[in-house]
Amino acid sequence: MIKDLFKKRKSIEQVEESKELAPKFNEDGLIPVVTTDFKSGEVLMQGYMNKEAFYKTITLGEAVYYSRSRKSLWHKGKTSGYVQTIKEIRIDDDQDCVWLKVDLNGGASCHVGYKSCFYRSIPFGKNSADSGVVLEFKEKEKVFDPKKVYKDSPNPTKL
Amino acid sequence: MIKDLFKKRKSIEQVEESKELAPKFNEDGLIPVVTTDFKSGEVLMQGYMNKEAFYKTITLGEAVYYSRSRKSLWHKGKTSGYVQTIKEIRIDDDQDCVWLKVDLNGGASCHVGYKSCFYRSIPFGKNSADSGVVLEFKEKEKVFDPKKVYKDSPNPTKL
Repeated sequence: MIKDLFKKRKSIEQVEESKELAPKFNEDGLIPVVTTDFKSGEVLMQGYMNKEAFYKTITLGEAVYYSRSRKSLWHKGKTSGYVQTIKEIRIDDDQDCVWLKVDLNGGASCHVGYKSCFYRSIPFGKNSADSGVVLEFKEKEKVFDPKKVYKDSPNPTKL
Repeated sequence: MIKDLFKKRKSIEQVEESKELAPKFNEDGLIPVVTTDFKSGEVLMQGYMNKEAFYKTITLGEAVYYSRSRKSLWHKGKTSGYVQTIKEIRIDDDQDCVWLKVDLNGGASCHVGYKSCFYRSIPFGKNSADSGVVLEFKEKEKVFDPKKVYKDSPNPTKL
């Protein structure tokens, strides 16, 4: 049960140095999640989980997030078919962030169609800001066509 | 200048498919940042940047965050000596998250003394929640002794 899985936060030593899982959910009841490809190490996406999503991810072995735009649990891949199989789950020092290492099973994690959501690079350096930044596409081809997969679903990107 | 670096968000197509840098800062003026080791791919930490920190990171080539606990810019490594040299900066599809690939220069990124903040693993699977979760330490030794490095500075972990 969920209440047995997450311990009460009692001390900094417990949170940082012990083997107890005592995650901190923010004022919206969410904890940020970083998801990487377990083979390549590339960051695929950054999302959020509420208590129930975290519980389901741990017990199911598949990534379940909380969608802030849809305000509901989000079992990743249920629409696109690209379920994220959990290979490892890590928690950080103060237990307010989760790292998932996942197997995409040959699929993609980005709703735009790329493998990773982070398909563009920002040039940097002393003079980079003067001339205006031009992003560089690091992924050249989409893995899937979002129009075919999501059809008429609303785009989750908010301006 | 900062105002020239970040473009106004005009359309979903601009944000997702163009080469314009038009990041979204949240209601607190912050954007989440995922930082990985450029060689090993391991996630080192997850932090936040405000506009000024993002500008400084891009122009300086070293990671500058915004500390929510101290409410100020945080040039990572200025106390511990473990500056994060930027190797690549990526931005995600809807431009509300940044991925930094950094060189720790042999140091550590975690205030507890480990290389990565994510030094503990959460066991998962069908029955994992029943018996109570016991975290597993994946890093066995600290890179540095936080008491020696930070001395009397307050611990940033909040309960």
